[in-house]
Amino acid sequence: MDNNLLIQALKGSPVERPPVWIMRQAGRYLPDFMKLKEKYDFFTRCRTPELATEITLMPIDQIGVDAAIIFSDILVVLQAMNIEVEMRDGIGPYLPSPIKDKASLEQSILPDVHEHLGYVFETVKMIKNELKEQVPLIGFAGAPWTLLCYAVQGQGSKNFDRAKAFCYQHPELANEFLQKITTTTIAYLREKVKAGVDVIQLFDSWGGLLTPKDYQVFSWPYIQQIIDALSGTVPVIVFGKGCWFALKEMSKSGAAALGIDWTCSARNARYLSGGQITLQGNFDPSKLLLPIPEIKIQVKQMINEFGKDRYIVNLGHGILPNIPVDHAKAFVDAVKEYQS
Amino acid sequence: MDNNLLIQALKGSPVERPPVWIMRQAGRYLPDFMKLKEKYDFFTRCRTPELATEITLMPIDQIGVDAAIIFSDILVVLQAMNIEVEMRDGIGPYLPSPIKDKASLEQSILPDVHEHLGYVFETVKMIKNELKEQVPLIGFAGAPWTLLCYAVQGQGSKNFDRAKAFCYQHPELANEFLQKITTTTIAYLREKVKAGVDVIQLFDSWGGLLTPKDYQVFSWPYIQQIIDALSGTVPVIVFGKGCWFALKEMSKSGAAALGIDWTCSARNARYLSGGQITLQGNFDPSKLLLPIPEIKIQVKQMINEFGKDRYIVNLGHGILPNIPVDHAKAFVDAVKEYQS
Repeated sequence: MDNNLLIQALKGSPVERPPVWIMRQAGRYLPDFMKLKEKYDFFTRCRTPELATEITLMPIDQIGVDAAIIFSDILVVLQAMNIEVEMRDGIGPYLPSPIKDKASLEQSILPDVHEHLGYVFETVKMIKNELKEQVPLIGFAGAPWTLLCYAVQGQGSKNFDRAKAFCYQHPELANEFLQKITTTTIAYLREKVKAGVDVIQLFDSWGGLLTPKDYQVFSWPYIQQIIDALSGTVPVIVFGKGCWFALKEMSKSGAAALGIDWTCSARNARYLSGGQITLQGNFDPSKLLLPIPEIKIQVKQMINEFGKDRYIVNLGHGILPNIPVDHAKAFVDAVKEYQS
Repeated sequence: MDNNLLIQALKGSPVERPPVWIMRQAGRYLPDFMKLKEKYDFFTRCRTPELATEITLMPIDQIGVDAAIIFSDILVVLQAMNIEVEMRDGIGPYLPSPIKDKASLEQSILPDVHEHLGYVFETVKMIKNELKEQVPLIGFAGAPWTLLCYAVQGQGSKNFDRAKAFCYQHPELANEFLQKITTTTIAYLREKVKAGVDVIQLFDSWGGLLTPKDYQVFSWPYIQQIIDALSGTVPVIVFGKGCWFALKEMSKSGAAALGIDWTCSARNARYLSGGQITLQGNFDPSKLLLPIPEIKIQVKQMINEFGKDRYIVNLGHGILPNIPVDHAKAFVDAVKEYQS
């Protein structure tokens, strides 16, 4: 690999400067992405390897990040399980037939991932081929809890109250469904690794909506299963938004790194995760609207606070659509200019 | 006061059992509230002392909580400042002319609170009169940061990105506005105390969207000013949703109690707040959909975890509209049946 910084940081090896990538780096803030968005709907872009590859490579060329992450969506796993998912303008994910009881749960399947998600593995191969070992490629999946949130709620939500109520009222059904998602996700990620991804990131976007106890019931055990299943293959990064309370368990899980959101200071994050594991994050996405010189100052401060080693620079959540490209690039440049 | 439990808990005095009240207890889960909602729009209910009084008293009679909280809204302070606020069905708060620059900020005023918020003080007097010292009456205000979020964003939001961008890009304007809100809030709360409220709660619903550093710039100093200004009058409860990272500063502020959301365990909350200050919370609002016997078990567990003293039972956020009244009552009853 020409640029090995991410892999080094995931191993905990000393680096000259930390690697940097950005969650949703192949996204709506890029004018070239918006051009493709006008021509092809969301899942067409996901399912057409040529399009997904083109989109995946955009931020490598245009802002110079140290890793690619495949353009896809966490909800493709639900689609493969026979749960219909649409992407609606102005609403986001929309599921016409949410899971609400045993009958609807039985409609979901344990899919043959080759048959239903083959387009993802094909895309991985195409990207790896195009990347020519320039930078590593990250593959990803949603945490089972986060997928359940969408599958039950039927769309995005501030508090996913219907999804939580379903779990509290029907814990056995919930755990059955979570296991089904987990089994599918493991099969999916194993094939993604076989197809060539160098790193896996798990996104638990809604883990932070649970109490610490419920997190240990409905989210964490399934993430741990996935980490265990991938053991010995590629490094796994776990990003649990709002999951500061679980950093200790996470740090003992075998994950190579933990993603941190911006509400957890570097100091708290290092303390809560035991001080040894690689951390990733945690610039407030809204701060990319600051003037460029101020972005550079604050990125440098952030690296000083986390320390340059065992650290991957990223935002604390996905990049916002209204960020100017040169601000995203300034974020990346600030890391490249870093001198301790 | 016939029922002095809340005041005792706020003083840190030992109690037989902790007091209990529910955020949004006078709200949409009550059928009688919904009947008034059909007849009168939101701000008519706030501005008509007879209606606001009737609504305030509903949960005292119907579910038996240990405190009343005046039916009102945090956004009345913005209205008094000459910032138009509507309440739209299906959207929630909607501000047709959000604050976006110096010019729009200059349109806002430092109001005479008697002139613009006199209806609130009149309501307080009416409620106190009706309550006949049965239970204490809580008055409240939004934290300046949370009010700024609405004033700038113009409506509710998952991440209040426009509000945050405004603060990062124009910190001087932001602080000028925050000070204006703070000055208004202090005048407002002092009059509320004069009118007869026994306790004040400050709601920082969106403090948890900030980094710990920014919280110290854009939110906490203004809350501290309000606490200081009310010093020597009535006890102040500060509820900062998602503000676990600031519990230490909060515990030294002179606040009588701190509200905790459900993502912070009792143990973490006691630890982070130094173990001495009274805490309030933190039942996951979605858990009121559990079967009644299970609610009772979990409430008892929660009291055991927080300890019966220096503790006020509440939810970790407002009660959801779809909670059956008998479940809300079971929550209250579980506290009344508590024996350590």
